[in-house]
Amino acid sequence: MTRNNPGNRSRKKQNANIASMTRKPPTDSHGHDLAEPRIRAVIKGVKPQIEDGHFPIKRVVGDRVTVEGDIFTDGHDALSARLLFRAGDDADWHETSMEPLVNDRWQGAFNITKLTDYFYTIEAWVDRFKSWREGLSKKIAAEQNVSVELIEGAELVSEAAKRARGSAAELLTAYAAALRAKEADAVHKALEEELAALMSTHADRRWAARYDKQLRIVVDRPSAEFSSWYEIFPRSCADQPGKHGTFSDCMARLPYVAEMGFSVLYLPPIHPIGHSYRKGKNGSLAAGPDDVGSPWAIGSEEGGHKSIHPLLGTLADFKQLVEKAREHAIETALDIAYQCSPDHPYVKEHPQWFRQRPDGTIQYAENPPKKYQDIYPIDFETEDWRALWDELKSVLLFWCQQGVRIFRVDNPHTKAFRFWEWVIAEIKKDHPETIFLAEAFTRPKVMYRLAELGFSQSYTYFTWRNTKSELTQYFTELTRTDIADFFRPNLWPNTPDILPEYLQAGGRPAFMSRLVLAATLGGNYGIYGPAFELCVSLPREPGSEEYLDSEKYQIKNWNIDSPDSLRGFIARVNQIRRANAALHHNHSLRFYTVDNDEIICFAKHTEDRNNFIVVAVNLDPHHPQSGWVELPLAQLGLDPTKPFQMHDLLTDARYLWNGPRNYLSLNPASVPAHIFRVRHNLRREQDFDYFM
Amino acid sequence: MTRNNPGNRSRKKQNANIASMTRKPPTDSHGHDLAEPRIRAVIKGVKPQIEDGHFPIKRVVGDRVTVEGDIFTDGHDALSARLLFRAGDDADWHETSMEPLVNDRWQGAFNITKLTDYFYTIEAWVDRFKSWREGLSKKIAAEQNVSVELIEGAELVSEAAKRARGSAAELLTAYAAALRAKEADAVHKALEEELAALMSTHADRRWAARYDKQLRIVVDRPSAEFSSWYEIFPRSCADQPGKHGTFSDCMARLPYVAEMGFSVLYLPPIHPIGHSYRKGKNGSLAAGPDDVGSPWAIGSEEGGHKSIHPLLGTLADFKQLVEKAREHAIETALDIAYQCSPDHPYVKEHPQWFRQRPDGTIQYAENPPKKYQDIYPIDFETEDWRALWDELKSVLLFWCQQGVRIFRVDNPHTKAFRFWEWVIAEIKKDHPETIFLAEAFTRPKVMYRLAELGFSQSYTYFTWRNTKSELTQYFTELTRTDIADFFRPNLWPNTPDILPEYLQAGGRPAFMSRLVLAATLGGNYGIYGPAFELCVSLPREPGSEEYLDSEKYQIKNWNIDSPDSLRGFIARVNQIRRANAALHHNHSLRFYTVDNDEIICFAKHTEDRNNFIVVAVNLDPHHPQSGWVELPLAQLGLDPTKPFQMHDLLTDARYLWNGPRNYLSLNPASVPAHIFRVRHNLRREQDFDYFM
Repeated sequence: MTRNNPGNRSRKKQNANIASMTRKPPTDSHGHDLAEPRIRAVIKGVKPQIEDGHFPIKRVVGDRVTVEGDIFTDGHDALSARLLFRAGDDADWHETSMEPLVNDRWQGAFNITKLTDYFYTIEAWVDRFKSWREGLSKKIAAEQNVSVELIEGAELVSEAAKRARGSAAELLTAYAAALRAKEADAVHKALEEELAALMSTHADRRWAARYDKQLRIVVDRPSAEFSSWYEIFPRSCADQPGKHGTFSDCMARLPYVAEMGFSVLYLPPIHPIGHSYRKGKNGSLAAGPDDVGSPWAIGSEEGGHKSIHPLLGTLADFKQLVEKAREHAIETALDIAYQCSPDHPYVKEHPQWFRQRPDGTIQYAENPPKKYQDIYPIDFETEDWRALWDELKSVLLFWCQQGVRIFRVDNPHTKAFRFWEWVIAEIKKDHPETIFLAEAFTRPKVMYRLAELGFSQSYTYFTWRNTKSELTQYFTELTRTDIADFFRPNLWPNTPDILPEYLQAGGRPAFMSRLVLAATLGGNYGIYGPAFELCVSLPREPGSEEYLDSEKYQIKNWNIDSPDSLRGFIARVNQIRRANAALHHNHSLRFYTVDNDEIICFAKHTEDRNNFIVVAVNLDPHHPQSGWVELPLAQLGLDPTKPFQMHDLLTDARYLWNGPRNYLSLNPASVPAHIFRVRHNLRREQDFDYFM
Repeated sequence: MTRNNPGNRSRKKQNANIASMTRKPPTDSHGHDLAEPRIRAVIKGVKPQIEDGHFPIKRVVGDRVTVEGDIFTDGHDALSARLLFRAGDDADWHETSMEPLVNDRWQGAFNITKLTDYFYTIEAWVDRFKSWREGLSKKIAAEQNVSVELIEGAELVSEAAKRARGSAAELLTAYAAALRAKEADAVHKALEEELAALMSTHADRRWAARYDKQLRIVVDRPSAEFSSWYEIFPRSCADQPGKHGTFSDCMARLPYVAEMGFSVLYLPPIHPIGHSYRKGKNGSLAAGPDDVGSPWAIGSEEGGHKSIHPLLGTLADFKQLVEKAREHAIETALDIAYQCSPDHPYVKEHPQWFRQRPDGTIQYAENPPKKYQDIYPIDFETEDWRALWDELKSVLLFWCQQGVRIFRVDNPHTKAFRFWEWVIAEIKKDHPETIFLAEAFTRPKVMYRLAELGFSQSYTYFTWRNTKSELTQYFTELTRTDIADFFRPNLWPNTPDILPEYLQAGGRPAFMSRLVLAATLGGNYGIYGPAFELCVSLPREPGSEEYLDSEKYQIKNWNIDSPDSLRGFIARVNQIRRANAALHHNHSLRFYTVDNDEIICFAKHTEDRNNFIVVAVNLDPHHPQSGWVELPLAQLGLDPTKPFQMHDLLTDARYLWNGPRNYLSLNPASVPAHIFRVRHNLRREQDFDYFM
């Protein structure tokens, strides 16, 4: 697991020595050259690391990266270890020292400051000076004669002096002389901390072992980890029922979205919609003449993936929308759905990009026995794949040129894995700030694979995780295992495709609790609105997760000013998210025990624990629930002998709690959740001006 | 994690096509060539696998190797997968099919039949025929028209016919024709199992993905996994007190050892012993003129590691001992302690193999402030390491030539890791049946590393694991994690260096229970005798684990015929071990719940579960203990509605048990353990001749 240190100057000399020997060097069982036996440190089990280092881990600018590894050697000699790291364009490695934890596990850390790939690895060596110093102090403590030891030490220090320059070299030379002086004085000098520090800086690293992999980090901007998405159909933004909305109407909706505190406005496909086999209302096979079709049936005579649906407006209108949104601190995300309606220009221009059947027709999408004749999947196995890939890449580049830097990718799991790995890397070469969200609701290993291949964020099973045990288990998997290093959850309580049964049955309280869960369990979350804030809960038919009269197939006119809207509540939650850095990441998430299975309680905190948020949610939308929550006071930095304040940021109520077990009660008829900020400094009589 | 299949003939053609294209092929983010996109199967997470495949797993001849991997692809196409394996000298891969378990995990297995390294890997591909067949049957069930599908199928079958030879080709051609015939008949033919089997055998594997590693198996003979060791000092085998025993005396002891049922006779070093700084009785620094010294202070004017202590006999005597032992079905194991007394010939002949101090002396062993001046450690960092390594290897080869095939290596963790990896591989090249036991009582990661580097067996912390929770936790780690694939425990309740406090305090019942634990928890176990069977329990001083008047420093005369000896009990336990194949491996070990923490209960069974052994041990050597044990009846293959018999092989008592919870009671004053064989077929009235 370790290899020779190639960057070492004296390595050349050593190789020359080996070459001049007549005997063939011994090899290990894999045929590896076993020279040089003086390279004795073993470095293994380095984390974070994804699939043997084949895929990068993900971090954002500003993160601190903590790296651990097993580092040990044969025998009893002391070791030293350094964590080596560099940003993509750095010529040399930077290094920082690693310290032993327990059981031969070592740890070091560095900060990410630039929006570029980083690399890290570990170097470790048998540190003869450190071993010598430890032995010496034990022998001195046992009052043994150490005269020979002092000469040995002087030799080590003299060698280090030769490696050093300037004042360090002078200091080391002086130390070497001191170690050769009278034993009583020399012993004192030998154990000085300054000497230890100098010897560490100028260590003999000729036989350092280097970990055999340089592990990569894909660095994103912070909004890859913290963002609030709002999905909206622009065609439903018109101010009159039945009228086809435009980008201009959508612009008028921006203050509403901004007021709710969302940072990303995500638009379903904005391209021309096919007319062949167009789906009617509620997905019916026979569309009427007025049916507008599904935005995901992309392409018509009016254009394809780089065109805009004429009824929405022009490219200029779109760019204006992007610009206006930015003024509201909202970024625009586009939907990338690589599939075509039968009327898409690609079908005529590049028929080889689709699968031809023996009867001369093109293979439409199907999931036997279901047929989706309005959609032609692209054949990623086409012989002409190079041209195809280039064209699909050019779609992304086109929208990048229009100012878009977030893409929500539709069903990426039905397209070639290798394509995604390639195209995401290609786009990020010139636009490293680009964020890709994978909309893959599929088997777990496929979802994780897409994240490994480069997707910045991923839809999750949160949509269907409702009970305390389901949520606890799933979010423990997402935040406390290796998965957290490459898979960034983006939590959606609803989407245009999914009206979960929990929302169908639970009414307004269900929408509130799911919103709080999404917004606090996930650094990234989103809702499909206005259906969400208006608590729309009617399915197409019982047992279906499709919305009745789904916006996917028809224009809707939403009464966003309904007094029952959750817009105010959502605004409050998003405001709390923005103001509390604890909620900007997922890695600190921990679940707390509550003696009632209908109440879930969890916490997140900043590195310094100054911002500590405890969330409690009543998962039962029908009944008030109460229970006792157990807080790990030490972890919260709380004194078990003193009361503390739990400040509910949702209602601004303040509760005095005391000790590890405290009572709470949540009524779905009012607010089914607490978002507490823990307030440590509770004033007491001692704090009163005249107490003394 | 997957790469192109290099063994594929059509790969060449495909490369040629790529080369003829003018555009540069796209690459992934690592710069890998992304051609060929049709290679779509992903293979990852393959187990067993040690440290990214850097080290081999271990198995023995006769084992069945089960291999698992995550296998999946983008989209909804069906996959097929094969497990590929070969013995070291096989020219081609053999293959066996893999089947999906759950969650995209696949499994296959093959048998080890030869004493040579094996290799395995996985191949998987998108199986168009399988996808087609699945779709077709759904469409038929939905009564859809499948005329175009049948033509597509006929094309797939025709292509397969071209890949096939002889009768298979004819059959496939006939099927292709049948699929082109009248739809009603064709549908029937299309779904025939024979066609599916033929299409599987002649699958289109042009775009098969191959796992990117060939994983290695080191294969040992079965006794690497199942052996019973008996350690004895030959010099203490004389029939008169104070007399130095010889190999001849040791031969006379063979029937005694054989009667107890041991399969390995392990001798501490048999070489000349140094006289400089020789240790006296109980390790005192001042040896008297009659003190015999420690066998581990190897070397004197009379020779070194290839010589025999003159008082033990000659090389011919030794070879006779080895031969005689073999007649008793006992193999002789030698102790390899690579260290020298100051009088060892190496010290004069190769002073460069030891560390010179500035005062001209040679560095003796030390653990500051402790000094071991009778021992010079070998300096594995010497510039002359090539000659040193060759010499050390020649020591092993020398004893191989005398018929020794088992080496117990003393303190391997204080010698260079790289040396062990090299020398074990070197010896096994010509002597693959050689077994190396690592005597490393050191930190866990170092112990595991030595096993990874090639040691066949390892000493363990069993010696100090006494309570139920300690034993359960440790043996779960050793048998139920990846560690089980490379680390073979050899369990010792005592050694000449370690008289554990449990044995000091617990008396005879403690020796009995520790023996049963060692012999049943471990396929490999050993005792240091006769101290063990005579229940010797006096330490040098309170708090010490050294034996009083340790045999390491003086000749002992053991009364092996003592009526209190455990020899009969040990013989019984070893007989049970031999007769019950369940105890020949560790991988089936499972712990059962008992409602008394002083009673531990566990089970092992053969693959077919016909031999199912349940062990219960009272860990309290002072008091009778009883409790209720919970048996997982389904796992034991027991009918919960019928009683069954638990046959205690130690006492031959038979107990009728019933249901999952049963009572047991163990009295340390008699036998503190049960070794039950589960007897399924309990006779009932129906089995009585005249019942009908």
